[in-house]
Amino acid sequence: MSPHDRIERALRASLTPVLQPGHPPQLAAAMLHAVFPGGARIRPKLTLAVAQACGEDDPALTDAAAAAIELLHCASLVHDDLPCFDDAETRRGRASVHRAFGERLAVLAGDALIVAAFDALGPAARRHLSRLPVLLRAITRGVGMPGGIVAGQAWECESQLSLQQYQQAKTGALFAAATMAGAQAAGADGEPWRALGERLGQTYQVADDIRDVMLDAQVLGKPGGQDVARDRPSYARALGLEGAMAEFQRLVQATLLSVPACPGATPLRQLIRREADRLVPQQLSDRIAAAA
Amino acid sequence: MSPHDRIERALRASLTPVLQPGHPPQLAAAMLHAVFPGGARIRPKLTLAVAQACGEDDPALTDAAAAAIELLHCASLVHDDLPCFDDAETRRGRASVHRAFGERLAVLAGDALIVAAFDALGPAARRHLSRLPVLLRAITRGVGMPGGIVAGQAWECESQLSLQQYQQAKTGALFAAATMAGAQAAGADGEPWRALGERLGQTYQVADDIRDVMLDAQVLGKPGGQDVARDRPSYARALGLEGAMAEFQRLVQATLLSVPACPGATPLRQLIRREADRLVPQQLSDRIAAAA
Repeated sequence: MSPHDRIERALRASLTPVLQPGHPPQLAAAMLHAVFPGGARIRPKLTLAVAQACGEDDPALTDAAAAAIELLHCASLVHDDLPCFDDAETRRGRASVHRAFGERLAVLAGDALIVAAFDALGPAARRHLSRLPVLLRAITRGVGMPGGIVAGQAWECESQLSLQQYQQAKTGALFAAATMAGAQAAGADGEPWRALGERLGQTYQVADDIRDVMLDAQVLGKPGGQDVARDRPSYARALGLEGAMAEFQRLVQATLLSVPACPGATPLRQLIRREADRLVPQQLSDRIAAAA
Repeated sequence: MSPHDRIERALRASLTPVLQPGHPPQLAAAMLHAVFPGGARIRPKLTLAVAQACGEDDPALTDAAAAAIELLHCASLVHDDLPCFDDAETRRGRASVHRAFGERLAVLAGDALIVAAFDALGPAARRHLSRLPVLLRAITRGVGMPGGIVAGQAWECESQLSLQQYQQAKTGALFAAATMAGAQAAGADGEPWRALGERLGQTYQVADDIRDVMLDAQVLGKPGGQDVARDRPSYARALGLEGAMAEFQRLVQATLLSVPACPGATPLRQLIRREADRLVPQQLSDRIAAAA
């Protein structure tokens, strides 16, 4: 089964309780709207790739961990899109959850997705119970305080922040949870995989900042130019487009060097290279160089 | 150590990561504001009481489970108070989180409290790892879909709802999680404790509906008369005050009969009787009878 199919199946399995008898129908619909159809599913793909690189021996546990991380990512998008934050009209090319279902159901859908992320982990860990506490901790720390995505979003409410700390929490932390959880689900130590996740997160963030400037809403599936419009810190704003592009290329190299020794290091590095090409295609890089 | 002291200590322990170096300061302050000083801490007290009734053998695990349930309750209050729901100015006698810290930090504080609830469970279960999956499941189902407190809140967004289903999800589910988690933390089966939690939740809900009508904001620590003002379903509205009072007394008896056979059944029943007297004191009951 392809990683894509595994992830979609795991997400549907994790959301099975949502449609059990007696559920409030609009909240169920809002949760499904937030998760399907998905975006690139980058984080859960990373979890699967790292588990395989570590000699995966419990695919059901990998799948549940990957689904948990994607559900938490979806939850954060729903809440980030709320009127009090970005007030985004669209997400993944269609109405954001609060535009489609109203603000109250968007708040609740985010909450329920966070809870759903943790709901499926216990049963999935029955074959390797000792992996559950470390997995749970890696995932909670990728989302919660003091340095997870919720903390990252909270830095936008502070008058003073460092760009690096903000980006690390807002993006790096959940990427680190994705790599660490992949290793942990396969019975390996998660800690050596933290740096890879953090660097990958930074790489994606720089790419995202470049894309926010260079691409239009149709390609992005959401409005472009939002970092300037919302006065948000951004690598493209801090370093200029050419500087951000150089930083992106430097980070891709650093990421490749961060892959720990493991049975499947080579295919993992190939995957990272392909992702880098997908994120910032050569023609985008050429346009930036030509404009400089 | 008294139950009160155990719970406050467990809550502080669960929130330790919030104040670790590198945290965004306003979000940390908002989370602490949401949790301290607390209300009656009814749910975690129930978890402790049930664990003791079941012959508690791992107090650290009971404490972590009790703290998780209280953090989830606090999170739900923060989100329920948001402008898109109740827009409550006050909570527990002082400013609600969104009034004190703004709407964005209130959304994030609720999210971060949900995550914090799950963060401390893994390490606390190290002595009895096999209890972790069942505890996790009981707690997630008390909060999430299809019938937890988030679902209860979502029923307010539906045009058709049954009062019983709404109250069961909004209040009963987390009470059931509290009793089940107490049993599970002590190594007992949680399922026989579900009915007690659900009935207790219903009892508290009826009491809350009566208090909303009869007591003023100073006693409640929040505005009174909200059920009518917000057109929310309520036992006092559905049954009249006298009918709600009769229902309360019937439920207290049913709750007492729901205590499963266990070493500490007698002190647990005494605790339930004391709580019933605290919730609807004799003089309140007399005033209702006199007005009828």
